Amino acid sequence: MSVADSYPEASMATHPFFPPDLELPGYVANPTSVPILLALFAAGVGFVFSATVILARAVQASISKGKLYTAMWFMLCGCIHLFFEGYFAYHNAEMPARIDVFGQLWKEYSKSDHRYLTRDAFTVCMETVTAVAWGPLSFLIGWLTIKDHPLRYPLQLIVSLGQFYGDVLYMGIFFFDEAVHGAVFCRPERFYFWVYYVMMNGFWFVIPGWLIFEAVVECTKALRLAQEVGKRASPKSQ
Amino acid sequence: MSVADSYPEASMATHPFFPPDLELPGYVANPTSVPILLALFAAGVGFVFSATVILARAVQASISKGKLYTAMWFMLCGCIHLFFEGYFAYHNAEMPARIDVFGQLWKEYSKSDHRYLTRDAFTVCMETVTAVAWGPLSFLIGWLTIKDHPLRYPLQLIVSLGQFYGDVLYMGIFFFDEAVHGAVFCRPERFYFWVYYVMMNGFWFVIPGWLIFEAVVECTKALRLAQEVGKRASPKSQ
Repeated sequence: MSVADSYPEASMATHPFFPPDLELPGYVANPTSVPILLALFAAGVGFVFSATVILARAVQASISKGKLYTAMWFMLCGCIHLFFEGYFAYHNAEMPARIDVFGQLWKEYSKSDHRYLTRDAFTVCMETVTAVAWGPLSFLIGWLTIKDHPLRYPLQLIVSLGQFYGDVLYMGIFFFDEAVHGAVFCRPERFYFWVYYVMMNGFWFVIPGWLIFEAVVECTKALRLAQEVGKRASPKSQ
Repeated sequence: MSVADSYPEASMATHPFFPPDLELPGYVANPTSVPILLALFAAGVGFVFSATVILARAVQASISKGKLYTAMWFMLCGCIHLFFEGYFAYHNAEMPARIDVFGQLWKEYSKSDHRYLTRDAFTVCMETVTAVAWGPLSFLIGWLTIKDHPLRYPLQLIVSLGQFYGDVLYMGIFFFDEAVHGAVFCRPERFYFWVYYVMMNGFWFVIPGWLIFEAVVECTKALRLAQEVGKRASPKSQ
């Protein structure tokens, strides 16, 4: 069953978002094809990963694989949060009309979530925090990981939890609004829901979930050691 | 200028929330007076604080003031998150009709924020996470603080950041929705805005803000010490 079958008004829609009668003042269709947009995004990811590997190996030749992957992840997060999500936070009032590469990428993604085109209060606030706080901190963590700095794990815990919690609310509201208020934000095709919405956001559950666990374990180990060292130094005061 | 002057429909309102024409199916007015409701809440807070002090001194007679205050804070947070906010998360569909003590307290607070009466998706999702995750973890942190356990600071960082970030989004959306979409959730009297909305939620900025800072400092100190111990133990492998 096609969209047009379930929603007769879809055939008259002036935009590809859902629901078809959603009003998007100033909307301009993307001039660039989807494969080219996705290739540009993938090229950006590849560039950030490559630059991080080169930088990390130059600063610490013997860096472990685990630290290298963590640094790559946070440098990518820094770029996506500060530049891509920062772009949305800054231009939230005029997203339907924007046709530069970031504007087109956001409109393509919005097929799975129209809240990025309608100044949804939660989406704008969450993305603003992500851009302003998690963005710069992600770059800092990437650098601290390469340098093996003790501040790395506490900041890793902060940013990963911020990403994880933001994602939980982002998805929770999506499903709650549909179940309770009948508000649907995603096109009905499985592709947009599973690939754009679930898979893209799924990365920010799985990887931060692991990094939260790792940071808790590392901090707890160090705090236990510090207690033992403290006890050995002054056994009577304990 | 009274509410009735600015909003003629206020004089016909069937409930004390804002805007006066807000629809609240099943609404039942609070039978208990505001001073009694607030006194009951204050008595609950006093009981939790007293019980924590007695428990903490019984388990660790020489507990420092800082740790005692932290334990009191987290035991209070545990009760508020799990029982009071859990009550809202569980009963979110029928809040306007509820007249037990928690239901009446939520309706009194809702004079500063009607989202607690309308199944607002963000509010329900955020409160559900708060009740289910931060609630039990707060009790655990209170206990770990009394026992001086090394897991305390990593969990303190997680819960305090969760509270802080939840509060930022909660207030950010409140102001964004008013500024951009003209949606007003609070009665116009200064008392409800400043005392209920700003002051009550302000606690969850200031105290978690300090506890985040403390946890980052303590974890970083311990991680630095662990690095130094590691270097001393095997100087060549570093």
